[in-house]
Amino acid sequence: MTDRRYMALALSLGRRGQGMCWPNPAVGCVIVKDARIVGRGFTQPGGRPHAEPVALAQAGAAARGATAYVTLEPCSHHGKTPPCAEALIAAGVARVVVAVEDSDARVSGRGLEMLRAAGIEVTLGVMAEEAARDLQGFFLKTDLGRPFLTLKLATTLDGRIATASGESQWITGPEARREVHAMRLRHDAVMVGGGTARADDPSLTVRGMGATAQPVRVVVSRRLDLPLMGNLARTAQDIPVWIAHGQDADPNLQQTWRDLGAELLPCGLEGVQLSATSVLRALGKRGLTRVFCEGGGALAASLLAADMVDELITFSAGMVLGAEGHPAIGAMGLARLAEAPKFDLISQRAVGRDIMSVWHRLEGRAAGR
Amino acid sequence: MTDRRYMALALSLGRRGQGMCWPNPAVGCVIVKDARIVGRGFTQPGGRPHAEPVALAQAGAAARGATAYVTLEPCSHHGKTPPCAEALIAAGVARVVVAVEDSDARVSGRGLEMLRAAGIEVTLGVMAEEAARDLQGFFLKTDLGRPFLTLKLATTLDGRIATASGESQWITGPEARREVHAMRLRHDAVMVGGGTARADDPSLTVRGMGATAQPVRVVVSRRLDLPLMGNLARTAQDIPVWIAHGQDADPNLQQTWRDLGAELLPCGLEGVQLSATSVLRALGKRGLTRVFCEGGGALAASLLAADMVDELITFSAGMVLGAEGHPAIGAMGLARLAEAPKFDLISQRAVGRDIMSVWHRLEGRAAGR
Repeated sequence: MTDRRYMALALSLGRRGQGMCWPNPAVGCVIVKDARIVGRGFTQPGGRPHAEPVALAQAGAAARGATAYVTLEPCSHHGKTPPCAEALIAAGVARVVVAVEDSDARVSGRGLEMLRAAGIEVTLGVMAEEAARDLQGFFLKTDLGRPFLTLKLATTLDGRIATASGESQWITGPEARREVHAMRLRHDAVMVGGGTARADDPSLTVRGMGATAQPVRVVVSRRLDLPLMGNLARTAQDIPVWIAHGQDADPNLQQTWRDLGAELLPCGLEGVQLSATSVLRALGKRGLTRVFCEGGGALAASLLAADMVDELITFSAGMVLGAEGHPAIGAMGLARLAEAPKFDLISQRAVGRDIMSVWHRLEGRAAGR
Repeated sequence: MTDRRYMALALSLGRRGQGMCWPNPAVGCVIVKDARIVGRGFTQPGGRPHAEPVALAQAGAAARGATAYVTLEPCSHHGKTPPCAEALIAAGVARVVVAVEDSDARVSGRGLEMLRAAGIEVTLGVMAEEAARDLQGFFLKTDLGRPFLTLKLATTLDGRIATASGESQWITGPEARREVHAMRLRHDAVMVGGGTARADDPSLTVRGMGATAQPVRVVVSRRLDLPLMGNLARTAQDIPVWIAHGQDADPNLQQTWRDLGAELLPCGLEGVQLSATSVLRALGKRGLTRVFCEGGGALAASLLAADMVDELITFSAGMVLGAEGHPAIGAMGLARLAEAPKFDLISQRAVGRDIMSVWHRLEGRAAGR
């Protein structure tokens, strides 16, 4: 029980790094000596230093004979920093408790071996399920080459996001919008489709949260036909804008967007649309571990149809717009109920006057390779 | 505080009569003598006896000098039963606590006067808001000539009720369906549109709840083009089926449905559709106080557009169907967000794997005359 309590603390520390430390995993570490917490650490912005050296530095000499709780297997390879397993050994830690093994081929199991070879007692699997969930973006990137994807929908009770004429501000209330900003902050990137970029001219930044770093803004637009005078174009020099586009997009537009400061990610097509798989692979290749998609309907539909949505968050407002309203999810081409993407309810609560609900991909379904 | 506690009990007793006692209000009564509950009553199936005589009969001689808690002003007129105010006086009750006044012109205020004139201490307004909500159907019928309307929607996360090809069973789970049967039981009638009657061939009965009485089944079908061999036609002799139809419906079909045992309610049109106002007025005239509408999309849209939906209950299942799916709410012809019917969130909770949420018409809006 005590192991679980310290690991829960390490997990909550680890989550503080989410959205800040890609391409590295957001790991947490707690060092405990004689039932006293002597060190706390989490992966720092930009991915370095790792959680363990931060916690060890705080513990100082108290690390000798202590137990270290780490949410992910300590690294064993010499990368840009010396391996954390070595640091734990050098500090004289007596026991290391790990939630999950690393799936990176350079580490997997070797970090634990290194610790054991040095005579350290190793316990693996404490709160493994929670850790695997928190680190899922890192594992997906390593294993499948794509980031973890959260899809957010903010709709009326009948699943609409705008009137027929496109009026959409505001369907959900200020409390829901604040939650959305907090969610953006915990992701490496915020992503929208070209239609939303044209209709809403969003800035996609985190506001009102005292944020020091901003997530990457990703726009998915086959033809790069995005407003050249809009918020994204205007701020692309300051906060990264990446545009996933078709290889057939106008070369002049490609150059214009590069000049504006955007990074271009040419992607493959699936029919007339950009392939959701190709887009997410491109983002994974660039190192993203957690992506937060905010629509619109066409992009949401293509991500769902490709079975790429790991977490679905809905905000439902007490309002109905009827069938002429714009749907939150566009055409998916499903013939049968059995083909419909399905999700498990994780939680639901009132947020202001709206309901927020969190759903995870139904267990047992393919991870969306 | 004690008054509130006993009134809360009277209210919960009163709710037991909901769906059973129309055209009468579902009233509850508790009689308390020396801090002991000596009588409990609620309006009996069919509307008689009223709550007060049931509670007084249980109290017997203990009613003398007792306090009676009644959710609605006791009746003062000689109808099919002697007035309840007289019965309370005759029993020697010392004090009567009433939640809300009756709005029926034959009673309003007179029941209270009669009690006061007999030297009984009268307290009015204890838990008045809750009582007004529970009895809203009765008040709406008396004041506006229409019943209270609950609209239930059971949808995917994107507001769909069936695939493009019409496949709809089952979107929500067994726990949600059980909740729906319990809700049907608390209403005088269950109502669907003709499209739903054709597509699903529903029986609209309460099942698995040990119900002894069944709500009226109401179908809204301008042209009476409903399946003559379906569940409703087959059982119309046993459990009431009322069909709201246009005056221009085929006279042969009208006769056929009468022969099958259905009652026909000719209603006015609004454009090419039956007028929601006309339909609800016809139901109010027949004595219904609480109607539970289960769709489909066209009927739901016309009730919402007419601002007739007092309570909206949604069940959301963890599934998405995309824009080709049938929408829960059909075309409403809204041009602006400001025109959209709005609702206050009352509660939300998980029901099996689905979310159930309850919404009330936004306060301050017209009651939908």
